[in-house]
Amino acid sequence: MSEALAKPADARRERILRAAERSFIASGFHGARMAQIAKEAKMSPGHIYHYFESKEQIIAEMIRAHFDEKLETLERYRHAGDKLVDMMIENLSDSFATDTDPFWSTLMLEIAAEATRNDEIAASIRNMNADMRAKVLSYLRENVDVDDLEARLEVFVALIQGLGIRNIINPDIDKEAVVRIARDIVELLFRRPSKRNA
Amino acid sequence: MSEALAKPADARRERILRAAERSFIASGFHGARMAQIAKEAKMSPGHIYHYFESKEQIIAEMIRAHFDEKLETLERYRHAGDKLVDMMIENLSDSFATDTDPFWSTLMLEIAAEATRNDEIAASIRNMNADMRAKVLSYLRENVDVDDLEARLEVFVALIQGLGIRNIINPDIDKEAVVRIARDIVELLFRRPSKRNA
Repeated sequence: MSEALAKPADARRERILRAAERSFIASGFHGARMAQIAKEAKMSPGHIYHYFESKEQIIAEMIRAHFDEKLETLERYRHAGDKLVDMMIENLSDSFATDTDPFWSTLMLEIAAEATRNDEIAASIRNMNADMRAKVLSYLRENVDVDDLEARLEVFVALIQGLGIRNIINPDIDKEAVVRIARDIVELLFRRPSKRNA
Repeated sequence: MSEALAKPADARRERILRAAERSFIASGFHGARMAQIAKEAKMSPGHIYHYFESKEQIIAEMIRAHFDEKLETLERYRHAGDKLVDMMIENLSDSFATDTDPFWSTLMLEIAAEATRNDEIAASIRNMNADMRAKVLSYLRENVDVDDLEARLEVFVALIQGLGIRNIINPDIDKEAVVRIARDIVELLFRRPSKRNA
C-alpha cells in the first residue's frame, strides 16, 4: 500500500483531493465546480477527469478516506476488554474536537442532505456507515453487556454528529461542560447493566 | 394576526413558500432556482421578486415560521412546574418524529452547512436559535434544578438534531429503542440533583 501511494498518479489524486477540500470549504458541495477544483489543483480540467470522472467520485473518495481514518482509530478499541467504555469516555473530548471540525461537520451535513435526493450518494454513505457500524458493534459486543446495543450506538453517533451542528449554530457553546455531560451519557449508554428484566 | 394572514398578499407569500418547499425537496437549497420556484408556484419570476428579494429571504421566512411553530409548542411547557421533565419525556416520541422529518432535517442540514460560508444566513440562524434558547432556558430555570443547564440544553438539542441525521443515513434505525434510550438521557440531563458538590 505505501508503495502504491508513492506512485506519481497517487500523488496527483491526493493533490486533487486537497484542492477539492479547499474548494468545498469555500463554495460548498454544490457551489464548487470541477473547473474551480482544477484551478485550485493547478491542473487542466481534462487532467482532473483522467483521475476522477465526477465531483461525486471525488467526494466518495474523500468520505472513504475519512471513514478509513476513523476505522483505523477504532482498531485500538479492539482489544480494550473491559476498559472499552473507559477509553470511549477518555477519548470523547478528542472525538468532540474532531467530529465538530467545521470542515467535516459541514461536508457531512451536505452529504446527508444530498443523500435524501441522490440515490448513488445515499447508497455510498449507507454502505460505508454499515461497514463502520458492524466493526464498532463487534468490538462493543465483546466488551459491553447492555440491551439494544445497536440503538445505543446510533444514539451515541447522533450525539457526536448533533454536537457538530450545535458547534456551527452556537459557536459559544461551553465545550468543557458539554464534554462533561456527554461523558455521563456514554456511561449511561454503555455501562448500565443489561437484562435487568430477564 | 389572523386578519393579516387572510390578506391576498399573505396568501401569495404562503403559496410561494409552499412552492419553495417542494422545490427544495426536489433540488436542494443550492439546486433550486428562483425560476423553478416561480414555475412551481405558477407565478412569473418577476411576481415572486415582488414578495421576496432572494432565495435566501424565502429560506429565512421558512425557518422563522418553523421556529415560531416550535416556540408555540413550547408555550405549553411554560406553566408545567415540576411536570416539565415528565412532559419532555412524554413528548420525546412526537419530537423525534417531527425533528427527524426528512424535509426539515434536510433543510436544517443545508442551512447549517451554508452558515459556515454565508454570514447573513449564519447571523439569521444564530439569532433565531438564541431567541429560542432564551425562551426554553427561562422555562427550564423555573422548573429544573441542575448545574450547567445551558450546556445540557445544547446536548439535548444536539441529540434531537443528530437523530435526524441518523434517520437519513440509517433509515432502518430501531425508532422505539432509540426513543426508550433517549428518554433515559432526558432523565439524566434534567432530573439529576444539582449542587452535589456545593
